[in-house]
Amino acid sequence: MKYFATLLAQDGAATMDLSAEISQNLLTTNNVWMMLSTALVFIMHLGFAGVEAGFGQAKNTVNILFKNTITPILGILSYAFVGFYLMYPGFETPGWLSFDTAGWSMFWFSPGDADVTSGYADGGYTYWTDFLFQAMFAATAATIVSGAIAERVKLWAYLIFTLLYVGIVYPLIGSWKWGGGALDAMGFYDFAGSTLVHSVGGWGALAGVILVGPRIGKYVNGKTVDKPGSSVPLAVIGVFLLWLGWFGFNGGSVLSADPALVSFVLVTTCLAACAGGLGGFLAGNLVFKRLDLGMVLNGVLAGLVGITAGADVINPGAAVLVGFIAGILVVYSAVLLDKLKLDDVVGAVSVHLTCGIWGTLAVGIFSTNPDHTFFTQLIGVAICGVAAFSAAFIIFFVLKKTIGIRVSEEHERNGLDSHEHGIRGYTIVYDE
Amino acid sequence: MKYFATLLAQDGAATMDLSAEISQNLLTTNNVWMMLSTALVFIMHLGFAGVEAGFGQAKNTVNILFKNTITPILGILSYAFVGFYLMYPGFETPGWLSFDTAGWSMFWFSPGDADVTSGYADGGYTYWTDFLFQAMFAATAATIVSGAIAERVKLWAYLIFTLLYVGIVYPLIGSWKWGGGALDAMGFYDFAGSTLVHSVGGWGALAGVILVGPRIGKYVNGKTVDKPGSSVPLAVIGVFLLWLGWFGFNGGSVLSADPALVSFVLVTTCLAACAGGLGGFLAGNLVFKRLDLGMVLNGVLAGLVGITAGADVINPGAAVLVGFIAGILVVYSAVLLDKLKLDDVVGAVSVHLTCGIWGTLAVGIFSTNPDHTFFTQLIGVAICGVAAFSAAFIIFFVLKKTIGIRVSEEHERNGLDSHEHGIRGYTIVYDE
Amino acid sequence: MKYFATLLAQDGAATMDLSAEISQNLLTTNNVWMMLSTALVFIMHLGFAGVEAGFGQAKNTVNILFKNTITPILGILSYAFVGFYLMYPGFETPGWLSFDTAGWSMFWFSPGDADVTSGYADGGYTYWTDFLFQAMFAATAATIVSGAIAERVKLWAYLIFTLLYVGIVYPLIGSWKWGGGALDAMGFYDFAGSTLVHSVGGWGALAGVILVGPRIGKYVNGKTVDKPGSSVPLAVIGVFLLWLGWFGFNGGSVLSADPALVSFVLVTTCLAACAGGLGGFLAGNLVFKRLDLGMVLNGVLAGLVGITAGADVINPGAAVLVGFIAGILVVYSAVLLDKLKLDDVVGAVSVHLTCGIWGTLAVGIFSTNPDHTFFTQLIGVAICGVAAFSAAFIIFFVLKKTIGIRVSEEHERNGLDSHEHGIRGYTIVYDE
Repeated sequence: MKYFATLLAQDGAATMDLSAEISQNLLTTNNVWMMLSTALVFIMHLGFAGVEAGFGQAKNTVNILFKNTITPILGILSYAFVGFYLMYPGFETPGWLSFDTAGWSMFWFSPGDADVTSGYADGGYTYWTDFLFQAMFAATAATIVSGAIAERVKLWAYLIFTLLYVGIVYPLIGSWKWGGGALDAMGFYDFAGSTLVHSVGGWGALAGVILVGPRIGKYVNGKTVDKPGSSVPLAVIGVFLLWLGWFGFNGGSVLSADPALVSFVLVTTCLAACAGGLGGFLAGNLVFKRLDLGMVLNGVLAGLVGITAGADVINPGAAVLVGFIAGILVVYSAVLLDKLKLDDVVGAVSVHLTCGIWGTLAVGIFSTNPDHTFFTQLIGVAICGVAAFSAAFIIFFVLKKTIGIRVSEEHERNGLDSHEHGIRGYTIVYDE
Repeated sequence: MKYFATLLAQDGAATMDLSAEISQNLLTTNNVWMMLSTALVFIMHLGFAGVEAGFGQAKNTVNILFKNTITPILGILSYAFVGFYLMYPGFETPGWLSFDTAGWSMFWFSPGDADVTSGYADGGYTYWTDFLFQAMFAATAATIVSGAIAERVKLWAYLIFTLLYVGIVYPLIGSWKWGGGALDAMGFYDFAGSTLVHSVGGWGALAGVILVGPRIGKYVNGKTVDKPGSSVPLAVIGVFLLWLGWFGFNGGSVLSADPALVSFVLVTTCLAACAGGLGGFLAGNLVFKRLDLGMVLNGVLAGLVGITAGADVINPGAAVLVGFIAGILVVYSAVLLDKLKLDDVVGAVSVHLTCGIWGTLAVGIFSTNPDHTFFTQLIGVAICGVAAFSAAFIIFFVLKKTIGIRVSEEHERNGLDSHEHGIRGYTIVYDE
Repeated sequence: MKYFATLLAQDGAATMDLSAEISQNLLTTNNVWMMLSTALVFIMHLGFAGVEAGFGQAKNTVNILFKNTITPILGILSYAFVGFYLMYPGFETPGWLSFDTAGWSMFWFSPGDADVTSGYADGGYTYWTDFLFQAMFAATAATIVSGAIAERVKLWAYLIFTLLYVGIVYPLIGSWKWGGGALDAMGFYDFAGSTLVHSVGGWGALAGVILVGPRIGKYVNGKTVDKPGSSVPLAVIGVFLLWLGWFGFNGGSVLSADPALVSFVLVTTCLAACAGGLGGFLAGNLVFKRLDLGMVLNGVLAGLVGITAGADVINPGAAVLVGFIAGILVVYSAVLLDKLKLDDVVGAVSVHLTCGIWGTLAVGIFSTNPDHTFFTQLIGVAICGVAAFSAAFIIFFVLKKTIGIRVSEEHERNGLDSHEHGIRGYTIVYDE
């Protein structure tokens, strides 16, 4: 009997070893998905750069690209130095402010053997992946602002804003829901950030647009004057890369590679993007009496922003509806902003704020989870909105009263590139 | 003894649980690969946009980009509403037409918990992944047509064509092989779609080119007049993104992450792309007496299209040969089409039809699987060709006789952008 | 008892079967990661094309793109025909030269069932993946050279150089470390190729720059004349794609999907990129008194090159330092080269050679592995440097004395595109 007992014990141990190996495999697969989602979100920064430089005037191309290149640089660094530990502080009781000092020490004084893993559901992924995925997200909040106030904002003012917004404001608000804070306890739902990322960026953009003021010559005698963008192909590249990046933005927000859930999320995301593009196409045609490519492109982004809050809890049919409505909203929102003389170069407020709000509320309407209610969603939208807008307004206001946030009139008329950067965006001359 | 029996039973159960977990892990990994392949195929739509806008004239850039942006939008939606269930109907006996009504209901009225998985080989992947991967494929069929008939086709006509071609024609033909229909039963082989995707698109392009007619000023006094493309860098971006996308197009067509098979497919695919580029380089040099970048680029695409039918059954050495021949074919095919006054803006017919046919037949020559025969491949090419060309011809013909498929002469001369879209593709002016 | 013995035996067999399945799953996941890393490294070729065509003058755009398109084509083919078996020869005793003839036969005369796997650590990945990943790496060595000597090099000379450098020089030097040769035995460490890839490319670039000479009009009366690049957006696209590609370049160099290690590598890589961009920004501002986007972009690349040798053994804090110093170095290196009248169109020598050396030495300073010493790193840098520079110098020298390596003065002044390629890079004309 001893012999069999030993055998059985060995078998039991083997089973347990196998079980550990299986868990490790799942961790590995989840982590691969999350790392690739991180890469996809990273490329969204090129997407934003393309949209802004494409829709911006040629005389400001270098300035726009400078902003969009430096944004992930400063964003990732400030998130690494401060933001990450503010956003995921491990609240002891769900609250409004905390900081993970242990995590901070570990990050910056890690033993270097890299063997630090966190213990999320579904096999999880590593601490390092977690940081990088979240850092890529964080930097988008500032990028959204960048597009709205382009072509007249002072670069240094924008850089300081970026440091503060990505390092402190965005992660603080994010902690209330994704860090397990007070909004999370309240039952507010925001799957991948219609509110926490896009509206937070959109509110910042709105505050910036108000305080910086419209570009010279944009509103003349009650008329809105279109400023032709330097390169429509560049804007199209930008939108497609953003759509691609959303595979990771929403797909990665499942925080594992759970096959059914992630693929469901990708389907709702893509259907909403398509329906948004269709909505922008039709509404743009109706309003502007032309085949307005800008509205198709912004419609796609609108659909993507709209589905982001509920991509995992909204059925395909409803996802089409959410996206389509977002695509229509983005057109009328852009018209309204122009009526209010709020000059937003790329339509960032309409895409990210208007549709971010719509998407968050849509969860209260269409979610298959009965715990999600319209009222809670509304409360969440309001709280985050007040916080983000106030913070952005205060930062821009202080900057305006100190170093200034707007370039000189001459500087703006000549274009920012020749003054600050010393080169031009395009030099297509054949001097034969 | 009871004690050991219980232990053994526990162990057996544990082993079975482990076995289920292992299967689930494999499903997860396969699904990750398939989702990322889907993302890669998606970005091919940006690749097509780049090639077409880059090789098209600047006065039509916005129109081209409009078409290429709206194509995946309409394509994915029409595939979701109709095409998918037509293409994978679950034939009871291999036939020519069926529709998966149960799947349709499930898709649009799914419970929302997303827990729907299909049961393919090698651990499979989810239903949602399956849909999205196939939808991305489907939309490419119309995009191929778009490039050929650019710069003079009426936008609305193209949109209606896209809806019908992606929603009905492409999936119907695809069902004959990939849906388990009659061609599959016959032994026809087309791994990733040299025929089912590329030739189907190419036949549509040929029908369109014939019925729309050449651009004004393209063929003058028996001479072919080159129309310079707006941006060669944009075309290069397009081709590289298409090559990248082919990692998913062919790699994903394994329908699992099977390590040996998928990586083998990537090697044959890349070798054929390189050999195709080399073939286009040499043949272009021979024919046009210059270092013709366009022919290198189309040679790469030719090699990719050529290897697509047999990427999993053709050895590396033969893959180089298949790609090289495709790269030469694409040059002479382009010359021939111009002789026939068939005006194809980007060479879509030469790349996708000529090399799609070549690649499908090459399976009959080089396949390591003795079941694949040249004759069966020829039959498959012929049946799909007759079906696709007839369908496309009929659609375009009816559109021509009703709403018209070609813009006015003035409109074409001025460029489509200023008339229909109200903006220009490039505005690179420094008005200091 | 027989009954239980049988049961136990079955259980044991089942456990062993499960164990094999688990290993296979891990192989599958590792292989997925490596294939996607391969795709990411592939897209770096588009990144290089963007940087070079963006920073190069419009009159040479097509020529630059031709070089950058043909480089991976020739590179992958020559690596497949020769390089791969030279780089991973399976040294019997660590030496300087060997060739894997068995591997060569297997590759080109493989049975076609694709079932060839290699046995690396951590579950490994397939032989085919190994080849393709390494082939993508290999072609970058020539691309680095391409950027430095653009705008005046003869195309045919560059093509021959590429064949020899990618097919023989790069793999031979690589075999000394990664192939298990003499440098590996010596304890030299180069995780992902600060020396083996970037410096080898950089030395080739330096040799080329010296022998080809500066562009006409670059250095006039002791002054350096900037030649404006055709498209800054294109250069930005290039840099972001290179950064993206580095996820695979460094992340894939772990040679498995090991969750902790790969994600750690991605974090150090991205932090170094950001710090490099910041360093380039500040140093550029100091030296050139302007917000120099070119220096931010080259700073990012400098940070990436710098961290590449030690991304797996340098802590986040030190990674920031390594990247930041690289970003500063790249600025002063560019200034120094211009003082020496070494005309490097895109700053390839400064980015890849200067920072490649710095990164390799940084391992000797910051590595958490006590086996890594500054002295050994220095020896490695010197040996590879002498080998790469000599080889490149000899190749270019022989080409110069035979077919010539520089175009005619008229040809250079007019731009290479109109002479050799017959088309222009940009044709943005509205002839209404």
